Amino acid sequence: MKKYTYPVLFDFVTNVLQKMGLSEDDAARCAKVFLAAEMRGISTHGVIRLSDYFKLWEAGRINVTPDIRVVHESPSTAVLDGDGAIGMLPSVKGMQMAIDKAQTAGTGWVAVRNSSNFGISGYYAMMALQHDMIGFASTNASPLVAPTFSSKAMLGTNPIAIAVPAGQQPPFVADFATTPVTRGKLTVAAKKGEKIAFGYAQDADGNPTNDPTAIEHGGSMLPLGGDREHGSHKGYCLGATVDILAAVLSGANFGPFVPPMMSYLPLLDEKSGEGWGHFFGAMRVDAFMPVEVFKRRMDKWIEVMRNAPPAKGQQKVLIPGDPERENEERIAREGVTLLPQVIADMRTIAEKTGVAFE
Amino acid sequence: MKKYTYPVLFDFVTNVLQKMGLSEDDAARCAKVFLAAEMRGISTHGVIRLSDYFKLWEAGRINVTPDIRVVHESPSTAVLDGDGAIGMLPSVKGMQMAIDKAQTAGTGWVAVRNSSNFGISGYYAMMALQHDMIGFASTNASPLVAPTFSSKAMLGTNPIAIAVPAGQQPPFVADFATTPVTRGKLTVAAKKGEKIAFGYAQDADGNPTNDPTAIEHGGSMLPLGGDREHGSHKGYCLGATVDILAAVLSGANFGPFVPPMMSYLPLLDEKSGEGWGHFFGAMRVDAFMPVEVFKRRMDKWIEVMRNAPPAKGQQKVLIPGDPERENEERIAREGVTLLPQVIADMRTIAEKTGVAFE
Repeated sequence: MKKYTYPVLFDFVTNVLQKMGLSEDDAARCAKVFLAAEMRGISTHGVIRLSDYFKLWEAGRINVTPDIRVVHESPSTAVLDGDGAIGMLPSVKGMQMAIDKAQTAGTGWVAVRNSSNFGISGYYAMMALQHDMIGFASTNASPLVAPTFSSKAMLGTNPIAIAVPAGQQPPFVADFATTPVTRGKLTVAAKKGEKIAFGYAQDADGNPTNDPTAIEHGGSMLPLGGDREHGSHKGYCLGATVDILAAVLSGANFGPFVPPMMSYLPLLDEKSGEGWGHFFGAMRVDAFMPVEVFKRRMDKWIEVMRNAPPAKGQQKVLIPGDPERENEERIAREGVTLLPQVIADMRTIAEKTGVAFE
Repeated sequence: MKKYTYPVLFDFVTNVLQKMGLSEDDAARCAKVFLAAEMRGISTHGVIRLSDYFKLWEAGRINVTPDIRVVHESPSTAVLDGDGAIGMLPSVKGMQMAIDKAQTAGTGWVAVRNSSNFGISGYYAMMALQHDMIGFASTNASPLVAPTFSSKAMLGTNPIAIAVPAGQQPPFVADFATTPVTRGKLTVAAKKGEKIAFGYAQDADGNPTNDPTAIEHGGSMLPLGGDREHGSHKGYCLGATVDILAAVLSGANFGPFVPPMMSYLPLLDEKSGEGWGHFFGAMRVDAFMPVEVFKRRMDKWIEVMRNAPPAKGQQKVLIPGDPERENEERIAREGVTLLPQVIADMRTIAEKTGVAFE
């Protein structure tokens, strides 16, 4: 299978975004997030998504020269209006603002409205690490997930990312959808003609199903926990909390009103705000204790967990972020593998824009 | 079954705590949290726990005249040392401090160390509501839960509470352990000789089990998600995040080092800090948008979710906090029911302290 290097893909994405009308700096800001997903092995959020934005742009549904504005502010908070931009732009700005506020106020919390899909949450949370801060990032998304006891998709897979710096140990980086699995896992199973585990999805009446295509026929995904007996109401609480912080509090569309990222889907008749919503946070470690003391404590936390006895048949306990870091090392060495369909999509974009892609 | 009124139980708890040496104000502060648990129908955290503290006090393992001190501070953060107090005391103070900081900085975040079990998390998160703030509360706890892929209990059930004010609608109040069920559910099943669902617990080797007594024989509870296939690594991330914020960042004992709340269990040989740790947060709504606008938006969010079509066989979708509020209305009317064993425990305490209990 053909492998691509970071610079080749970075240049391609940057050049395409510039052809769409983004400034060189903005294009590079977005490309870094696309590439971070590829390098961390989260290819579902990598360059495969470039065509979604490209088609949205063709449909006139994305603003490539946004005026991203602060609309509300306090010493430790802010709300940004993304002006209909590609999600990465107000997100990088929002997280940077959270970090800046944390420098003076101890913590910074920024809600963003009028945005769109921002790629991987972990990218933004990890921006805090180099400042010896703990980072948070989350976003709402188009409805796919039913609240416990409902048959209808009312919430997105609303991911949460948390990044915590350590000393000798690599940082703790959790980044997870508030569902048992991502939508991508259902798509892959559907393409392979495989069944999925119960607890991932339900049919249009709200009955449990192992059919990965159920969500294409009026069904929905289930919150983390899967069913009420296994705590799906807690997954629903988490997804709801993300929606409230990212959208109710920012002025974005919430719940079932979040607009689709697919250009072939019509915009919804009703709005409850502007675009998608995100929520970012940064907490300066030394607003709580000296950085060196914290890092020693965090190293010990990581070592203790990593050395916990494995369950029978398991090799080792992982620290959140371990698998993605291992992917990064491997992919930096081997290059990025793109699926044939993604390569075909990139070639289509290449033809339309005149940017070379091989 | 005998029913007790709020004032009767409140007076009893307050008088017992004063006999133990707490000031009248401190005793009342603690009693309010015990009673809030009873009134909200969370009797596992109600007066049943008074005997745990009483026995800890008899064993000289609780400080009834604590000097609760601020040990670190920034405009939006603080760390409190609870001086070995009953958990409610530094917790009420910590949450109040988060609220006070939010008044000036927009948000306030307080980590507490050298504390103990604080009762129900929701009580502290809800303190924010009357100030038109969003409240957060969480705590670590004695190890009961195994990280994904481990056979050993390394984390507590580490609950998270989030309270969000609304306008016409009652507030959103989520309060949940980061496990599929609470330990109480296992205890009840064990007493009844019933099996539990798979996904709650594992045996000492890390094999799935439906035996509720497994955790008494070297087994452990599982994180929210239940198994890796259903996202238990996400429940592990949540429990880990609570442990890091509440304990690594505050200077409390973390992970497997959290001391037991049962006086019959020996203190651990190794420490990683002081006592239990908690983490509290308050975000002023109008640090993001005008309160009235937010409350209208939150009302709509609640109405939209409540009116989502129910799954086949289900009556309605619940908003987090609905069941506890319904309990409060019913229990305020009918009184608090105590289990015979709890009544017996209270009588023992009554005899020892000379405080009347009928």
